[in-house]
Amino acid sequence: MATYQEIRQMWSDIGMDLDKHDGFLNTFPGIYNRIIQPQEGRPEKIDYFSKVVTSVHGRRPYELYEHKQKGGKVFGTYCVYVPDEVLLALGAVSTGLCGGDQFWVPGGEKYLPANTCPLIKSSMGSRMDRTSPFCQVADMFIGEATCDGKKKAWEILAQDVPMHIMEVPQMKRAKDIQRFAEEIWQLVEIAQELTGNQLRPDTLAESIKTINNKRRALKRLNRTRQASPVPISGKDALMVIQIAFYDDPIRFAEMTNILCDELDERIIKQEGPFPAEAPRILVTGTPMALPNWKLHHLIETSGAVVVCEESCTGTRYFEELADENRTDLTGQILALAERYMKTNCACFTPNQARADDIIRYAKEYKADGVIDYTLQFCGLYSTESYLLRESLKNEGIPFLHLETDYSEQDSEQLRTRIEAFIEILVN
Amino acid sequence: MATYQEIRQMWSDIGMDLDKHDGFLNTFPGIYNRIIQPQEGRPEKIDYFSKVVTSVHGRRPYELYEHKQKGGKVFGTYCVYVPDEVLLALGAVSTGLCGGDQFWVPGGEKYLPANTCPLIKSSMGSRMDRTSPFCQVADMFIGEATCDGKKKAWEILAQDVPMHIMEVPQMKRAKDIQRFAEEIWQLVEIAQELTGNQLRPDTLAESIKTINNKRRALKRLNRTRQASPVPISGKDALMVIQIAFYDDPIRFAEMTNILCDELDERIIKQEGPFPAEAPRILVTGTPMALPNWKLHHLIETSGAVVVCEESCTGTRYFEELADENRTDLTGQILALAERYMKTNCACFTPNQARADDIIRYAKEYKADGVIDYTLQFCGLYSTESYLLRESLKNEGIPFLHLETDYSEQDSEQLRTRIEAFIEILVN
Repeated sequence: MATYQEIRQMWSDIGMDLDKHDGFLNTFPGIYNRIIQPQEGRPEKIDYFSKVVTSVHGRRPYELYEHKQKGGKVFGTYCVYVPDEVLLALGAVSTGLCGGDQFWVPGGEKYLPANTCPLIKSSMGSRMDRTSPFCQVADMFIGEATCDGKKKAWEILAQDVPMHIMEVPQMKRAKDIQRFAEEIWQLVEIAQELTGNQLRPDTLAESIKTINNKRRALKRLNRTRQASPVPISGKDALMVIQIAFYDDPIRFAEMTNILCDELDERIIKQEGPFPAEAPRILVTGTPMALPNWKLHHLIETSGAVVVCEESCTGTRYFEELADENRTDLTGQILALAERYMKTNCACFTPNQARADDIIRYAKEYKADGVIDYTLQFCGLYSTESYLLRESLKNEGIPFLHLETDYSEQDSEQLRTRIEAFIEILVN
Repeated sequence: MATYQEIRQMWSDIGMDLDKHDGFLNTFPGIYNRIIQPQEGRPEKIDYFSKVVTSVHGRRPYELYEHKQKGGKVFGTYCVYVPDEVLLALGAVSTGLCGGDQFWVPGGEKYLPANTCPLIKSSMGSRMDRTSPFCQVADMFIGEATCDGKKKAWEILAQDVPMHIMEVPQMKRAKDIQRFAEEIWQLVEIAQELTGNQLRPDTLAESIKTINNKRRALKRLNRTRQASPVPISGKDALMVIQIAFYDDPIRFAEMTNILCDELDERIIKQEGPFPAEAPRILVTGTPMALPNWKLHHLIETSGAVVVCEESCTGTRYFEELADENRTDLTGQILALAERYMKTNCACFTPNQARADDIIRYAKEYKADGVIDYTLQFCGLYSTESYLLRESLKNEGIPFLHLETDYSEQDSEQLRTRIEAFIEILVN
């Protein structure tokens, strides 16, 4: 394990703005200490994940740094449509770069309109202000054409970093899946060039299994949340899912399975951080990048518990597995395209499948109500909310749409609305 | 020409909400009378276009109504990427449906988030409130996946009207042009089914020429604006371009050429509505649907004149012609795909070609400055503004970015900023 001095030296070596970053260090552990740490009835095995989070800019970035010193490459990604499998199979490491902290928003606003979603502004600011070791350590950034905001932000980011953009289709016809396979092939070419390695069916088969195992562990974690009482809080479960975007996938799956062993025991003993009668909330909508625990914190300090996230930091990330039975590269890449195109992001039209997912999850997780969380100025999810509300109404599922940003300014207003919603669920 | 009584009967027949629509009639001619009519030094031949605009819900809708009574079909469109050529070749009429009036915005906000661009809200409201004869007379609506807002709004609109969506690629690689050709082929199938007609190379060749002739007339109109003094105001030129989306294309080209004959004479006589020394403004950005003359009015009542619009209601609509020399359907459809994919909308990534266009136009039109107009909550154009500003700065072209909606609330604020910008240009 690297010492603090070694980590600070790394931050300097990778070109971070140490003074500005000290500002982040002054606020960040505070968020954890205020929101995550004080929870009661946490499982013991959450300890590993807590440690990863509290040393988020040290522990894992140092591993990436060491990987690079051995000649390895690091890819930074911003979307669950980027297939980590091919990057891993080429000996590279991929890491999520989405910003979840208000700290980075003003830095992003220097380049982006204020009317941009906070996730994009935060991601941009963390790179432009040189205050994220993940951004600094990445050799190449993989963007995607999903939403308007990201698509155009990458053009600005590309002035600062080596960037490759994947075109994500906007529909899901058979030809669109073929097209996405072509996009994956193009990523393979780019990544082969950067890593100097050739994609081989055996290593790709292995990496498909590795990433599937990470997803299986997350699916197992989520299944435990179907129990009543839930064996783990929504905040802790979300934190584990968020870490999946950064951590080594093999170690992550191992540690998540160890946590799940404990949660399975808790289920038998009917133990958990919330009473069995606590209203159960399914959260849906835009992703919650680390350390965005704002909504979960409001819900879980208002007497309810979050049992599932239909989100990119939730089921959209791990619900679908890639077929492990293809043996040639053409078949494997197509299997990846098929798997990724099953993800029901609001960037697709139409996207009724997302509403169907939510209705199914609401039943599986015995949710009492659905809270639809939209980051401000995300036109895709806020507009989709209209038809989602109709679909859930037809099923008699209570629904609350909330729009917010990363600041704390609206917290008490949101709390009032959330409390009123929970009260309806209880009565 | 239909009488007012016949027109009112038509409005009733096509299912308009006559009471609500009376509200529109109470405000609409007022906008024309306040903004367009009082201009001095207008060309005589603008008269035709003024008449079309002042009877916008009567004259042309009645023609469409008669077309339908003879068994013809009407397609409503919202985007310059929809190829009118194939619809026309199948004996159908296509008409623009984009809303440009604040009157329709509240109706749109019943279905869409307030944080949606006013053009989309206005378009949605005009249909949902049954107050647009163009929306009521259309047999089928053609939407497109261009921006997030429109893409998701079409899903809601599709609950109310028969709708076909075209997938517009987000990049401009050779394969993307092929893909767009496939999208046009799909539109052909849909339109063949609705009209009962078969696409033939001879009728398509004719309609390609018809639409090209409309574009040639508009290009000719715009070329006259390169003269100094300009022979026509920006407001009048914009009004002509806006009408191109609704009018019969053959008659429109004819009337525009008659207007251009007069403008050519004016150029020789050095006549025009503004003195030669008036600062010349190139407007770029989001489209201005009829009757959105807000920005032009502010500029042209502040001492400057608008000489060109790099916009969907401007050069992006008519600058490129389709190749008329292909003789088989495959070649013709590909020619259309090639032509439409030359349009440099901010929905593409990257989109440096748009900045290049603007720089070229600034020279051709001898613009003293560029005003970048973004409808509020249009993430594509507002984000692209950052790189556009940089490109123009490198060329030493003065640049002002403005963001606004359809209301009049910010007019005086905008005027102050526009006047300050013009003052810089003069000094």
